[in-house]
Amino acid sequence: MQSGPQPADFADVRATNLAVVLRHVRTHAPCSRADIAAATGLNKATVSSLVADLIERRLLRETGLTEHRIGRPATMLVLDGQPYAAIGMEVAADHLTAVAVDLAGEQLLSWRRAFTGTETAAGKAVSTIAALASRAASRVAAQGRQVLGVTVGVPGLVDADGAVRLAAGLGWRDVDLRADLVRALRDPKYDVAVDNDANLSALAEHRYGAFAGTSNLVYLTGELGIGAGVVVDGRLLRGGRGFSGEIGHLQLDPSGPQCPCGRVGCLEALAGVRAIIARVLPDAEADGPVTDFAPEIDEVVRRARRADQPTLAALAAVGRHLGHGVSILANLVNPDVVVLGGNFVPLSPWLLPAAEAELAARAVAPDAGGCRIVASALGPGAAATGGAARALAAVDAGHLPPLPA
Amino acid sequence: MQSGPQPADFADVRATNLAVVLRHVRTHAPCSRADIAAATGLNKATVSSLVADLIERRLLRETGLTEHRIGRPATMLVLDGQPYAAIGMEVAADHLTAVAVDLAGEQLLSWRRAFTGTETAAGKAVSTIAALASRAASRVAAQGRQVLGVTVGVPGLVDADGAVRLAAGLGWRDVDLRADLVRALRDPKYDVAVDNDANLSALAEHRYGAFAGTSNLVYLTGELGIGAGVVVDGRLLRGGRGFSGEIGHLQLDPSGPQCPCGRVGCLEALAGVRAIIARVLPDAEADGPVTDFAPEIDEVVRRARRADQPTLAALAAVGRHLGHGVSILANLVNPDVVVLGGNFVPLSPWLLPAAEAELAARAVAPDAGGCRIVASALGPGAAATGGAARALAAVDAGHLPPLPA
Repeated sequence: MQSGPQPADFADVRATNLAVVLRHVRTHAPCSRADIAAATGLNKATVSSLVADLIERRLLRETGLTEHRIGRPATMLVLDGQPYAAIGMEVAADHLTAVAVDLAGEQLLSWRRAFTGTETAAGKAVSTIAALASRAASRVAAQGRQVLGVTVGVPGLVDADGAVRLAAGLGWRDVDLRADLVRALRDPKYDVAVDNDANLSALAEHRYGAFAGTSNLVYLTGELGIGAGVVVDGRLLRGGRGFSGEIGHLQLDPSGPQCPCGRVGCLEALAGVRAIIARVLPDAEADGPVTDFAPEIDEVVRRARRADQPTLAALAAVGRHLGHGVSILANLVNPDVVVLGGNFVPLSPWLLPAAEAELAARAVAPDAGGCRIVASALGPGAAATGGAARALAAVDAGHLPPLPA
Repeated sequence: MQSGPQPADFADVRATNLAVVLRHVRTHAPCSRADIAAATGLNKATVSSLVADLIERRLLRETGLTEHRIGRPATMLVLDGQPYAAIGMEVAADHLTAVAVDLAGEQLLSWRRAFTGTETAAGKAVSTIAALASRAASRVAAQGRQVLGVTVGVPGLVDADGAVRLAAGLGWRDVDLRADLVRALRDPKYDVAVDNDANLSALAEHRYGAFAGTSNLVYLTGELGIGAGVVVDGRLLRGGRGFSGEIGHLQLDPSGPQCPCGRVGCLEALAGVRAIIARVLPDAEADGPVTDFAPEIDEVVRRARRADQPTLAALAAVGRHLGHGVSILANLVNPDVVVLGGNFVPLSPWLLPAAEAELAARAVAPDAGGCRIVASALGPGAAATGGAARALAAVDAGHLPPLPA
């Protein structure tokens, strides 16, 4: 019963209440001390003391704005958070992304570079990732900000120690990525973490997406593989060993195509980016396997836009398979929204109608239990954004950075 | 972000710490005040004050036992909880169960009666359920105990208000069971709740089963339908509208048998109790549909025990389908254990080997992500036991009953 109440003392109460105030301002800024007291039920003297502490930590700041209601004017508060930033990275089969975000949610940098993960030995990949992380950290530090953490998203099974057990799309098996990165970064002061890319994307969607704050939300990656990041009751569902969300190799059709994983009729083999390209552009891999999918996806979009019938039929079929996959989530997890990411985003106008119809037919609950399917509005690199969000969410949860010296 | 920290004050701290002490004694009794202080990190004076309060509420009591270690002898504490009981009920297609459990976990009564849910109009069923609940409450009250709540488990979609949206096995649709029961019980002082039977069984397994306390656990009902109760990180996964765990109508085989739900190849149509009986005892329903499955399941067990080959082959096939269903849970939710309940329990010696092999083949993570499949050891009426556990768990979570007058 690790979820039961934990022993608390008065110091915990203050840390908890600092986090409550910080979280309230993040979602309701600009707001006054009186607003905070009214919304949280904390008394005004307590709120004033907590706000003073948060201003000293440079997590909040007063604006010039005041609000004139009954009584004397109230000074409005907003997040400061500029002194603190977190870095997130996304490793995909065809690219590497790094972003930095400050605590107020402002994106400080966003870098994307080609990265042929599938052709790169894990050892060389670690150096490349570490070099990019190091550059991003230096850039942020040069702006006078404290780096709270670097979190790297990887499309595969990542255990609780940040080791990648299996990333089929990258050809990695048992790569101790977190330890390797800590070594390559020479034991940095900031926290280094590795997580599944779908998990991090779900965190990004939950914090910054069009459905931010939705308690039950799933993000489906649309990279070389298809993974699910599942948020339940506002928290990431990880499972016993951290291997949840492996939706890509559920068998949807026992008479379906062979999957590179060795199984048959997997969701990925039917609706993954390679399956889409193979269906719409059967000659694309004539000169060897495609390693950068963006140009091919652009071509699929062009054909769909001009209503090319075979393309529309292929995308409707892919949409049906996605809807089938989503229906399994809807029946088992009952999310309010399933967000399609990656390469599914530009294709979503043609995927969504078929996916929604399939979901409705296969869901047991009326109205598919309220489940909607939408395309992510976060833009590329959702897992990187989520990697940054992970360290920032720790602050929200009450793990405040130390007072500046 | 409803899962974030909530505002706390000093009264909350005391309620939280009362619950922490109560929970520690439940899992570690008999134990001394010093043991509690050492395990929780609370200081000894605080523990003494909390224990005094809990003894006054008759939630703890001192035993005659003392422990002689270094220093003076320590009086040992155990749960009292005898003055408080909760009632749970299970509605199945062929029976109705009621149990009462006191806060110390002692079962006070366990009644089971035939109940042809499928032939009973919902209105008549409500009267029958209410009458049994009322008798159980009277019995418990006559023992001088305070009834904390009555919770009824139903095999179907139950919304957050305790209304049954759909219970196909019972032929119910949009039955406002909680409100109807409150009316039939004439607005009782205790809490009345309705929940999905699989959810309640999972709570029972999590509190009293062989894998009690396992943070990531799934219970699969083996009644007329197959439902999943999913515990994630120590908490029940409910989803956006409370409709999670609907595993019974996932399609495992598009060329499989027709399911009464209108779909094809559902887990229930392949591995439900009707499918098992139809495979092993094809003549069983010659005289009309079977409504009490126990005698038929007994016959299946007899044939399996004498190694009747067609029976063993049929059970292996059912086991494979169950393993396929479990593999979907393993890939998406990564539980540590999946507990088979109901009619699967007596058949488990013949189901488990095939189920485990299928799980291993279909799980993406090595070692199926650590997922084991086991048979429940709780005995019949797990959902009823879970219904009682639900009210008792609220006490553990800090919602203490009021001080006795």
